[in-house]
Amino acid sequence: MLIDDGLELLTERQCEEFLGSATFGRIGVTIGGLPVILPVNYAYIDRSVLFRTRDGAKLRAANRGTVVAFEIDDFDRVTASGWSVLVIGRASEIVEGSEFSDLIDASIVPSALGDRDHLVRIASELITGRRLAG
Amino acid sequence: MLIDDGLELLTERQCEEFLGSATFGRIGVTIGGLPVILPVNYAYIDRSVLFRTRDGAKLRAANRGTVVAFEIDDFDRVTASGWSVLVIGRASEIVEGSEFSDLIDASIVPSALGDRDHLVRIASELITGRRLAG
Repeated sequence: MLIDDGLELLTERQCEEFLGSATFGRIGVTIGGLPVILPVNYAYIDRSVLFRTRDGAKLRAANRGTVVAFEIDDFDRVTASGWSVLVIGRASEIVEGSEFSDLIDASIVPSALGDRDHLVRIASELITGRRLAG
Repeated sequence: MLIDDGLELLTERQCEEFLGSATFGRIGVTIGGLPVILPVNYAYIDRSVLFRTRDGAKLRAANRGTVVAFEIDDFDRVTASGWSVLVIGRASEIVEGSEFSDLIDASIVPSALGDRDHLVRIASELITGRRLAG
Protein backbone atom coordinates (compact mmCIF):
# COMPACT_ATOMS: atom_id res chain seq x y z
CA MET A 1 0.00 0.00 0.00
CA LEU A 2 1.44 3.36 -1.00
CA ILE A 3 1.01 6.22 1.43
CA ASP A 4 0.92 9.89 0.44
CA ASP A 5 0.50 12.67 2.96
CA GLY A 6 -0.95 10.20 5.48
CA LEU A 7 -3.44 8.80 2.98
CA GLU A 8 -3.51 5.50 1.10
CA LEU A 9 -2.92 6.09 -2.60
CA LEU A 10 -5.45 4.45 -4.88
CA THR A 11 -4.27 2.61 -7.96
CA GLU A 12 -5.31 4.02 -11.32
CA ARG A 13 -7.61 1.04 -11.72
CA GLN A 14 -9.33 1.82 -8.40
CA CYS A 15 -9.65 5.45 -9.48
CA GLU A 16 -11.28 4.43 -12.74
CA GLU A 17 -13.74 2.20 -10.87
CA PHE A 18 -14.81 5.17 -8.75
CA LEU A 19 -15.01 7.38 -11.85
CA GLY A 20 -17.20 4.82 -13.58
CA SER A 21 -19.59 4.37 -10.67
CA ALA A 22 -20.22 8.03 -9.72
CA THR A 23 -22.22 10.53 -11.78
CA PHE A 24 -21.64 13.80 -9.93
CA GLY A 25 -18.35 15.67 -9.68
CA ARG A 26 -16.74 19.08 -9.74
CA ILE A 27 -14.75 21.02 -12.31
CA GLY A 28 -11.99 23.44 -11.31
CA VAL A 29 -11.59 26.28 -13.81
CA THR A 30 -10.57 29.91 -13.79
CA ILE A 31 -13.03 32.76 -14.35
CA GLY A 32 -11.56 36.21 -14.78
CA GLY A 33 -8.37 35.11 -13.08
CA LEU A 34 -10.20 33.67 -10.08
CA PRO A 35 -10.32 29.95 -9.34
CA VAL A 36 -13.80 28.42 -9.14
CA ILE A 37 -15.16 24.95 -8.50
CA LEU A 38 -18.42 24.08 -10.25
CA PRO A 39 -20.57 20.96 -9.78
CA VAL A 40 -21.42 18.87 -12.81
CA ASN A 41 -23.15 15.64 -13.75
CA TYR A 42 -20.85 13.54 -15.88
CA ALA A 43 -20.17 10.22 -17.50
CA TYR A 44 -16.78 8.52 -17.59
CA ILE A 45 -16.21 6.77 -20.89
CA ASP A 46 -12.96 5.64 -22.48
CA ARG A 47 -10.74 7.59 -20.05
CA SER A 48 -12.70 10.77 -20.66
CA VAL A 49 -14.91 12.82 -18.35
CA LEU A 50 -17.92 13.91 -20.41
CA PHE A 51 -20.63 16.38 -19.52
CA ARG A 52 -23.20 18.70 -21.02
CA THR A 53 -23.16 22.40 -20.35
CA ARG A 54 -24.58 25.63 -21.67
CA ASP A 55 -22.62 28.74 -22.57
CA GLY A 56 -20.58 29.61 -19.52
CA ALA A 57 -17.27 29.14 -17.73
CA LYS A 58 -17.08 25.40 -18.36
CA LEU A 59 -17.67 25.84 -22.07
CA ARG A 60 -15.20 28.70 -22.34
CA ALA A 61 -12.56 26.51 -20.69
CA ALA A 62 -13.27 23.85 -23.30
CA ASN A 63 -13.11 26.26 -26.20
CA ARG A 64 -9.76 27.56 -25.03
CA GLY A 65 -8.45 24.00 -24.64
CA THR A 66 -7.72 24.78 -21.00
CA VAL A 67 -6.29 22.17 -18.67
CA VAL A 68 -8.89 21.71 -15.95
CA ALA A 69 -9.26 19.69 -12.76
CA PHE A 70 -12.14 17.31 -12.16
CA GLU A 71 -12.78 15.74 -8.76
CA ILE A 72 -15.14 13.20 -7.21
CA ASP A 73 -15.17 12.15 -3.58
CA ASP A 74 -17.19 10.63 -0.82
CA PHE A 75 -16.70 11.22 2.86
CA ASP A 76 -18.56 9.72 5.81
CA ARG A 77 -18.72 12.20 8.64
CA VAL A 78 -19.51 9.55 11.26
CA THR A 79 -16.65 7.17 10.49
CA ALA A 80 -14.32 9.94 9.21
CA SER A 81 -13.51 7.73 6.24
CA GLY A 82 -13.71 8.41 2.54
CA TRP A 83 -11.91 8.73 -0.74
CA SER A 84 -11.26 11.24 -3.50
CA VAL A 85 -10.23 10.96 -7.14
CA LEU A 86 -8.68 13.79 -9.14
CA VAL A 87 -8.49 13.94 -12.93
CA ILE A 88 -6.42 16.56 -14.70
CA GLY A 89 -6.75 17.01 -18.44
CA ARG A 90 -7.44 19.29 -21.33
CA ALA A 91 -11.06 20.24 -21.95
CA SER A 92 -12.53 20.43 -25.43
CA GLU A 93 -15.97 20.74 -26.93
CA ILE A 94 -17.30 17.64 -28.65
CA VAL A 95 -19.15 18.02 -31.92
CA GLU A 96 -22.71 16.66 -31.88
CA GLY A 97 -23.01 13.41 -33.77
CA SER A 98 -19.46 12.37 -32.89
CA GLU A 99 -18.59 9.02 -31.36
CA PHE A 100 -19.14 10.41 -27.87
CA SER A 101 -22.39 12.30 -28.18
CA ASP A 102 -24.74 9.29 -28.24
CA LEU A 103 -22.89 7.67 -25.36
CA ILE A 104 -23.14 10.82 -23.32
CA ASP A 105 -26.84 11.27 -23.88
CA ALA A 106 -27.44 7.70 -22.74
CA SER A 107 -25.50 8.28 -19.51
CA ILE A 108 -25.81 11.84 -18.26
CA VAL A 109 -28.52 13.55 -16.31
CA PRO A 110 -27.79 17.26 -16.80
CA SER A 111 -27.14 19.04 -13.52
CA ALA A 112 -29.77 21.68 -14.16
CA LEU A 113 -33.02 22.03 -15.97
CA GLY A 114 -33.13 23.71 -19.36
CA ASP A 115 -31.09 23.31 -22.47
CA ARG A 116 -27.50 22.22 -22.12
CA ASP A 117 -26.48 22.39 -25.71
CA HIS A 118 -22.78 21.77 -25.53
CA LEU A 119 -20.85 18.57 -24.95
CA VAL A 120 -17.50 18.89 -23.20
CA ARG A 121 -14.82 16.25 -22.85
CA ILE A 122 -11.93 16.24 -20.43
CA ALA A 123 -9.29 13.87 -21.78
CA SER A 124 -7.64 12.50 -18.65
CA GLU A 125 -3.90 13.04 -18.61
CA LEU A 126 -3.37 12.45 -14.89
CA ILE A 127 -5.57 10.37 -12.59
CA THR A 128 -4.81 10.15 -8.88
CA GLY A 129 -6.81 9.08 -5.87
CA ARG A 130 -6.49 8.76 -2.14
CA ARG A 131 -8.41 6.90 0.50
CA LEU A 132 -8.81 7.83 4.15
CA ALA A 133 -9.57 5.03 6.56
CA GLY A 134 -11.51 6.28 9.55
CA MET B 1 -36.22 33.86 -6.53
CA LEU B 2 -33.16 34.71 -8.62
CA ILE B 3 -32.25 32.32 -11.41
CA ASP B 4 -28.72 31.87 -12.75
CA ASP B 5 -27.95 29.46 -15.57
CA GLY B 6 -31.16 27.53 -14.86
CA LEU B 7 -30.43 27.27 -11.14
CA GLU B 8 -31.94 29.05 -8.17
CA LEU B 9 -29.39 31.41 -6.64
CA LEU B 10 -29.00 31.06 -2.89
CA THR B 11 -28.82 34.14 -0.73
CA GLU B 12 -25.59 34.79 1.12
CA ARG B 13 -27.39 33.92 4.34
CA GLN B 14 -28.45 30.55 2.93
CA CYS B 15 -24.88 29.97 1.77
CA GLU B 16 -23.56 30.70 5.24
CA GLU B 17 -26.07 28.28 6.79
CA PHE B 18 -24.77 25.52 4.52
CA LEU B 19 -21.18 26.50 5.28
CA GLY B 20 -21.88 26.35 9.00
CA SER B 21 -23.56 22.95 8.89
CA ALA B 22 -21.11 21.01 6.70
CA THR B 23 -17.61 19.91 7.72
CA PHE B 24 -16.18 18.54 4.48
CA GLY B 25 -15.33 20.55 1.38
CA ARG B 26 -12.81 21.00 -1.39
CA ILE B 27 -10.06 23.51 -2.07
CA GLY B 28 -9.12 24.56 -5.60
CA VAL B 29 -5.46 25.54 -5.90
CA THR B 30 -2.72 25.43 -8.51
CA ILE B 31 0.25 23.06 -8.30
CA GLY B 32 3.02 23.59 -10.78
CA GLY B 33 0.68 25.48 -13.06
CA LEU B 34 -1.96 22.74 -13.00
CA PRO B 35 -5.34 23.17 -11.33
CA VAL B 36 -6.15 20.68 -8.59
CA ILE B 37 -9.09 20.11 -6.26
CA LEU B 38 -8.26 18.70 -2.84
CA PRO B 39 -10.72 17.50 -0.16
CA VAL B 40 -10.49 19.01 3.30
CA ASN B 41 -12.25 18.97 6.65
CA TYR B 42 -13.02 22.48 7.72
CA ALA B 43 -14.82 24.76 10.12
CA TYR B 44 -16.64 27.95 9.12
CA ILE B 45 -16.17 30.64 11.73
CA ASP B 46 -16.64 34.38 11.40
CA ARG B 47 -16.83 34.35 7.60
CA SER B 48 -13.65 32.30 7.34
CA VAL B 49 -13.05 28.77 6.15
CA LEU B 50 -10.51 27.21 8.52
CA PHE B 51 -8.66 23.95 8.23
CA ARG B 52 -5.55 22.13 9.36
CA THR B 53 -2.98 20.86 6.92
CA ARG B 54 0.56 19.65 6.77
CA ASP B 55 3.27 20.92 4.46
CA GLY B 56 1.88 20.67 0.94
CA ALA B 57 -0.04 22.44 -1.78
CA LYS B 58 -2.67 23.88 0.52
CA LEU B 59 -0.05 25.33 2.86
CA ARG B 60 2.00 26.74 0.01
CA ALA B 61 -1.10 28.48 -1.32
CA ALA B 62 -1.60 30.02 2.12
CA ASN B 63 1.99 31.12 2.44
CA ARG B 64 1.85 32.84 -0.93
CA GLY B 65 -1.41 34.55 0.01
CA THR B 66 -3.02 32.95 -3.02
CA VAL B 67 -6.68 33.48 -3.84
CA VAL B 68 -8.26 30.02 -3.69
CA ALA B 69 -11.67 28.48 -4.28
CA PHE B 70 -13.49 26.46 -1.65
CA GLU B 71 -16.62 24.47 -2.45
CA ILE B 72 -19.21 22.38 -0.63
CA ASP B 73 -22.15 20.64 -2.20
CA ASP B 74 -24.71 17.91 -1.84
CA PHE B 75 -26.46 16.13 -4.66
CA ASP B 76 -29.11 13.42 -4.51
CA ARG B 77 -28.78 11.09 -7.46
CA VAL B 78 -32.30 9.70 -7.11
CA THR B 79 -34.16 13.02 -7.01
CA ALA B 80 -31.55 14.87 -9.13
CA SER B 81 -31.70 17.71 -6.63
CA GLY B 82 -28.97 19.41 -4.68
CA TRP B 83 -27.04 22.56 -3.95
CA SER B 84 -23.53 23.95 -4.03
CA VAL B 85 -21.77 26.84 -2.30
CA LEU B 86 -18.57 28.45 -3.56
CA VAL B 87 -16.26 30.63 -1.48
CA ILE B 88 -13.45 32.61 -3.05
CA GLY B 89 -10.86 34.27 -0.88
CA ARG B 90 -7.26 34.73 0.02
CA ALA B 91 -5.59 31.93 1.98
CA SER B 92 -3.20 32.63 4.80
CA GLU B 93 -1.54 30.63 7.55
CA ILE B 94 -2.81 31.29 11.06
CA VAL B 95 -0.33 31.52 13.90
CA GLU B 96 -0.90 29.01 16.69
CA GLY B 97 -2.35 30.64 19.78
CA SER B 98 -4.24 33.23 17.76
CA GLU B 99 -7.94 33.95 18.17
CA PHE B 100 -8.78 31.24 15.66
CA SER B 101 -6.61 28.34 16.69
CA ASP B 102 -8.61 27.26 19.74
CA LEU B 103 -11.88 27.55 17.83
CA ILE B 104 -10.49 25.43 15.03
CA ASP B 105 -9.26 22.67 17.28
CA ALA B 106 -12.69 22.47 18.87
CA SER B 107 -14.39 22.11 15.50
CA ILE B 108 -12.25 20.30 12.97
CA VAL B 109 -11.63 16.63 12.45
CA PRO B 110 -8.49 16.56 10.26
CA SER B 111 -9.09 14.83 6.96
CA ALA B 112 -6.21 12.41 7.41
CA LEU B 113 -4.38 10.71 10.22
CA GLY B 114 -1.05 12.04 11.40
CA ASP B 115 0.15 15.46 12.31
CA ARG B 116 -1.46 18.43 10.60
CA ASP B 117 0.64 21.16 12.07
CA HIS B 118 -0.53 24.18 10.14
CA LEU B 119 -3.71 26.20 10.41
CA VAL B 120 -4.97 27.83 7.24
CA ARG B 121 -7.69 30.44 6.91
CA ILE B 122 -9.55 31.41 3.76
CA ALA B 123 -11.04 34.85 4.34
CA SER B 124 -14.20 34.81 2.25
CA GLU B 125 -14.34 37.63 -0.26
CA LEU B 126 -17.06 36.17 -2.48
CA ILE B 127 -19.75 33.68 -1.43
CA THR B 128 -22.21 32.30 -3.98
CA GLY B 129 -24.52 29.34 -4.02
CA ARG B 130 -27.00 27.64 -6.28
CA ARG B 131 -29.77 25.13 -5.73
CA LEU B 132 -31.07 22.59 -8.19
CA ALA B 133 -34.60 21.35 -7.63
CA GLY B 134 -35.06 17.84 -8.95
